[in-house]
Amino acid sequence: MAETSKSTGAASGGEFDLIRRHFKPLTRGQPGALELGDDAALLDVEPGRQLTVTTDALVAGVHFLDSLSPQDIAHKVVGANLSDLAAMGAQPRAVFLALQLTDKIDDSWLEAFADGFGQALAGSGATLLGGDVVTTPGPLALTLTAIGEVSTGHALTRAGAKDGDALFVTGSIGDGALGLLSATGQIDQDADLIARYARPQPRYAFAQTLARAGFAHACVDISDGLVADVGHICEASHLSATIEAQMVPLSAAAKRALDKAPDLLETVLTGGDDYELAFAANESDADLIAEAAELAGITVTRIGTFTRGDGGVRVVNAEGQPLELARQGYRHR
Amino acid sequence: MAETSKSTGAASGGEFDLIRRHFKPLTRGQPGALELGDDAALLDVEPGRQLTVTTDALVAGVHFLDSLSPQDIAHKVVGANLSDLAAMGAQPRAVFLALQLTDKIDDSWLEAFADGFGQALAGSGATLLGGDVVTTPGPLALTLTAIGEVSTGHALTRAGAKDGDALFVTGSIGDGALGLLSATGQIDQDADLIARYARPQPRYAFAQTLARAGFAHACVDISDGLVADVGHICEASHLSATIEAQMVPLSAAAKRALDKAPDLLETVLTGGDDYELAFAANESDADLIAEAAELAGITVTRIGTFTRGDGGVRVVNAEGQPLELARQGYRHR
Repeated sequence: MAETSKSTGAASGGEFDLIRRHFKPLTRGQPGALELGDDAALLDVEPGRQLTVTTDALVAGVHFLDSLSPQDIAHKVVGANLSDLAAMGAQPRAVFLALQLTDKIDDSWLEAFADGFGQALAGSGATLLGGDVVTTPGPLALTLTAIGEVSTGHALTRAGAKDGDALFVTGSIGDGALGLLSATGQIDQDADLIARYARPQPRYAFAQTLARAGFAHACVDISDGLVADVGHICEASHLSATIEAQMVPLSAAAKRALDKAPDLLETVLTGGDDYELAFAANESDADLIAEAAELAGITVTRIGTFTRGDGGVRVVNAEGQPLELARQGYRHR
Repeated sequence: MAETSKSTGAASGGEFDLIRRHFKPLTRGQPGALELGDDAALLDVEPGRQLTVTTDALVAGVHFLDSLSPQDIAHKVVGANLSDLAAMGAQPRAVFLALQLTDKIDDSWLEAFADGFGQALAGSGATLLGGDVVTTPGPLALTLTAIGEVSTGHALTRAGAKDGDALFVTGSIGDGALGLLSATGQIDQDADLIARYARPQPRYAFAQTLARAGFAHACVDISDGLVADVGHICEASHLSATIEAQMVPLSAAAKRALDKAPDLLETVLTGGDDYELAFAANESDADLIAEAAELAGITVTRIGTFTRGDGGVRVVNAEGQPLELARQGYRHR
């Protein structure tokens, strides 16, 4: 937690205390954290490994619901960032947290946030190594920088998918976007969906297998929406893709919601917040990929094919007819 | 520039365009940036080197004047972060920028900001490798994560100063804090002081020499204020320090301001925003240190001594009498 921010008026001077109390345990004694008390942290990298680095900024009311609990906000910011590392096939190593706090944030909020932050990191291999805590007159905002590592040359990127590759996705699609609708009362309350929205489960464990085994030719995490994110692979790989809508894996909760309102299919396909992986691989590797997924405790489903084309993503129904989608995915703000 | 943020309403979808136009040139073609178009960036580390990582969040109106130009804001955020790397003796390698933009930010602002950002990075060895761009209803805010590297085991930290070590500082002290007073009309307008406030000149080149040669036993950058930051070395090194006020190096502009208002001495000693280095070293190395500083085009001045004690920092006048300071430095917000 670097010490460069300062006030131009009276302040509690409590920043150091709160860092020590709430955040130091999240370093898990890593010496490189320098007890969150120096100008920067130290990070060692083994020969033959390279780092992957990603940064995400989340603003309350823009990128997550104001109503989320401190624990959920921690899960959200950690999940979104570790999902970016998963998309690269990287093993999470370290996170750096910049917190912009409002004057409504009190000690119990911070305690709950740090608790959720620790939970969200648990088992990922990453620890908190540093950050910054400042106050803002604007909304609560969090910027997380996550650093992972991967064997040099083995990182998955969006480029590299080949004509004829099968398109696979992990887990189930649409729960996050349906969870947002559920949490905001736009569809029936469903605790399973809301939990998927609030607490992403990034697929970093399976992603490391994908990268190590060389199965995936290109990979992306699904944060903007399935169609938009598959489009990112297409753009980087100079291909098109066809998604078979009836193959897209749905959770029991998503099926329930779709049974009541079939129009929600578009939300499932374009709504985002899934934090699953979409990747291109040889269809002949499907069995090996399924075995690896089973070991990681998840499912993988083939939902389409990459082909030569103009970069577009077509979604077709069971009869092979293209679905008209009003939008490809959320736009960035 | 990772792509995880999204809107819950209409948006321009212009994020990608603006990244490509304004920020891609700042990657200077580094392949690890993956053209700012993937989920994360890649960073290689040579054997025998370790990384130093620091994150700072700056909020408009809290951490810098709203009136600063986009170029100045870029210099401020880059300078503050590279100064943290300098404090570790690290060579800057990469920066990751998370921008929270207001709806008042237009294309010409971004162009000017990117221009200043490139200027501030020039010659440092660091390039932009990634980031995130989002909108906020609150004030403009910037979070920068900077990554540097240092020979393994050679990083400078705040711990390690020894009883009897001399206290040195680079450059001149107080210009940043006086520049803030000048920019806000609290003292006479002075372009030199305002420039020092708005455009820090972090001492990363000299710092690398300090770390390589092993001169400095402990080091900190002066961002909170000379007295507070020397206090950080004392705390981490379990020592006290005495600063001789008449030895503290002043710029010609600071001398002019002090001649008019001698009470400003306290601002000089505690005001912060210097982005100079303070370090502990053997007095017998003073000549070698001065030579190294000359090669780096800066000055280094001995201003005091570290001694056994309770962690306190005393400031004494030419007669050895302690000065009473109302505060030790800005408190963190």
